[in-house]
Amino acid sequence: MTDKTETQHGWLSEEDIATVRERLPIVYVEAVPVRVSDDGRVSEVGLLLRAMPDGTISRAIVSGRVLWGERIRDALIRNVEKDLGSLAMPRIPASPAPFTVVEYFPDPSVSGFHDPRQHAVSLAYVVPVEGICEPSQVTLDIAWLTPEEANSSEVSKEMTSGQDRLLRTALAHLGCLP
Amino acid sequence: MTDKTETQHGWLSEEDIATVRERLPIVYVEAVPVRVSDDGRVSEVGLLLRAMPDGTISRAIVSGRVLWGERIRDALIRNVEKDLGSLAMPRIPASPAPFTVVEYFPDPSVSGFHDPRQHAVSLAYVVPVEGICEPSQVTLDIAWLTPEEANSSEVSKEMTSGQDRLLRTALAHLGCLP
Amino acid sequence: MTDKTETQHGWLSEEDIATVRERLPIVYVEAVPVRVSDDGRVSEVGLLLRAMPDGTISRAIVSGRVLWGERIRDALIRNVEKDLGSLAMPRIPASPAPFTVVEYFPDPSVSGFHDPRQHAVSLAYVVPVEGICEPSQVTLDIAWLTPEEANSSEVSKEMTSGQDRLLRTALAHLGCLP
Amino acid sequence: MTDKTETQHGWLSEEDIATVRERLPIVYVEAVPVRVSDDGRVSEVGLLLRAMPDGTISRAIVSGRVLWGERIRDALIRNVEKDLGSLAMPRIPASPAPFTVVEYFPDPSVSGFHDPRQHAVSLAYVVPVEGICEPSQVTLDIAWLTPEEANSSEVSKEMTSGQDRLLRTALAHLGCLP
Repeated sequence: MTDKTETQHGWLSEEDIATVRERLPIVYVEAVPVRVSDDGRVSEVGLLLRAMPDGTISRAIVSGRVLWGERIRDALIRNVEKDLGSLAMPRIPASPAPFTVVEYFPDPSVSGFHDPRQHAVSLAYVVPVEGICEPSQVTLDIAWLTPEEANSSEVSKEMTSGQDRLLRTALAHLGCLP
Repeated sequence: MTDKTETQHGWLSEEDIATVRERLPIVYVEAVPVRVSDDGRVSEVGLLLRAMPDGTISRAIVSGRVLWGERIRDALIRNVEKDLGSLAMPRIPASPAPFTVVEYFPDPSVSGFHDPRQHAVSLAYVVPVEGICEPSQVTLDIAWLTPEEANSSEVSKEMTSGQDRLLRTALAHLGCLP
Repeated sequence: MTDKTETQHGWLSEEDIATVRERLPIVYVEAVPVRVSDDGRVSEVGLLLRAMPDGTISRAIVSGRVLWGERIRDALIRNVEKDLGSLAMPRIPASPAPFTVVEYFPDPSVSGFHDPRQHAVSLAYVVPVEGICEPSQVTLDIAWLTPEEANSSEVSKEMTSGQDRLLRTALAHLGCLP
Repeated sequence: MTDKTETQHGWLSEEDIATVRERLPIVYVEAVPVRVSDDGRVSEVGLLLRAMPDGTISRAIVSGRVLWGERIRDALIRNVEKDLGSLAMPRIPASPAPFTVVEYFPDPSVSGFHDPRQHAVSLAYVVPVEGICEPSQVTLDIAWLTPEEANSSEVSKEMTSGQDRLLRTALAHLGCLP
């Protein structure tokens, strides 16, 4: 995440954001990309391979900050396109309510969701994508897994920060927890 | 609603269904058809013009029974296509949870939702449609209204059975209640 | 479930209900009973031990039909009290929307949720209980488990009909899926 | 809102928070306090009378920042007790998902929700209260209204910042929009 290029309003240096991160929770959005069939059933879940805040290379879902002045819908589009490319054709949900809210803390014992950099409050959505997805920017790879595969302990082990729990929560919300 | 043709399993005569309707709640689905822009924002809501169970010709949303052995997803597709035609291209929601549940009773004072024929438990969903919608079967017309128009007292007056309340509940869920 | 005593309206013999069950989906409610602390966090999940429709003695959640003319809220209270006793003091949710909908079929391959007797459409709610719970009627025992225990494979094996999946879906909705 | 006393971590002067407010969205929680009957039905909605960010004295719902390191649950309790007193006995929701998310902007035309001080992303919950509520700190008065009264245009006119829309959205979520 290159914060300078992301900032629309005012100018927030790396130093400034480091200071703010020690003092206020930061608003994030997360998107679980899915492929759906005509009847709405989820056939595949998209997982990124990328460098995580904790220094690991891990499987992850789409994630990023909401910028000053930015609508949540626009933050979802921007972050999906950042990770899946500009041809992903995300179907942003019509309802503003996230299926869950995840709280990341520098101390992993607080909520089980861990971000060493900051306290982040993350609104999580399921985002069906209809277009062509290709790794872009910091994303190294995209894997499409069935719900069963996505729920497996093998995949969970490749995820960090608690994102495996978030992924299982999304699968439950979708009615496809095995 | 032609119950004979709708029945997949066993044979349920008009007489039989009349008997059952006095004894058990009937499962319905309802769908609020919407047009959405690329960022998921609802631009228009689709309202049918049709003959209602109470004998009026009214504005209404898509509604119909769930048949024996039928998945809710399939009931949604079938009923959307029944009312909007086979080219409507509905995006059936990925999550099985309805945004609300409406209880219709023969006695309108019980819940404010009224069906003189039966006690119906109706699972309500928002269904974006992407294709061409045209009145089919019992639908006389389809009107596309902005959320503001759909929420107006003029439109509410053209709806019966409590469906105006259901429509406003859908608009609230979508974050576009004026 | 003694259908005769449950029926409020008309008279529905065992024979009649057997006939109906082959022809129409039946409306159910299910309740996952939980103990919550002052900050709303779930400390324990209540699981019944009872005879199931498939003939097994299994761990289960509260479940029962919605009767003709009965509000869903009232069906929830009645079924919680049927299984947990009249002193359970359930906090029925203020919102009518279930956290998920489960579709039970005689053919277990349709949805993974299985009821050999019928096609049931079941609205599932989380219901905090504040009072004294004791087995009543068909319930043999009530066990209170932590969310971690409730999510374990040991507990899942003691559940049938797909209710272990429903339980995990509830835990996910509550943000306490391990 | 006295930001100094609210800040737990680090020290955030009035000047610092003014700077941050121009650069990052701030996380808020909002709570619609309700009285519910034994079957979960909402009998009354609680509205505060207080000084608002826009300088008016208006009807309002419970609202406040989430502090660094603070769980959303704890922010809800703290803000409910700040506005309704320490004997309010709020029932914090077991699920972390808000019923809606509201985006306040300095420019009222962006979303219709207005906060001249900042871009705030606010997670909105319905919070049943069981105890004694009395105005505390900045709250001048608390009024308990029926859902019908709360939805009236008279009450809407006494609310600012878009909170009347948020209140109607809550009523819709609760199934009690007239």
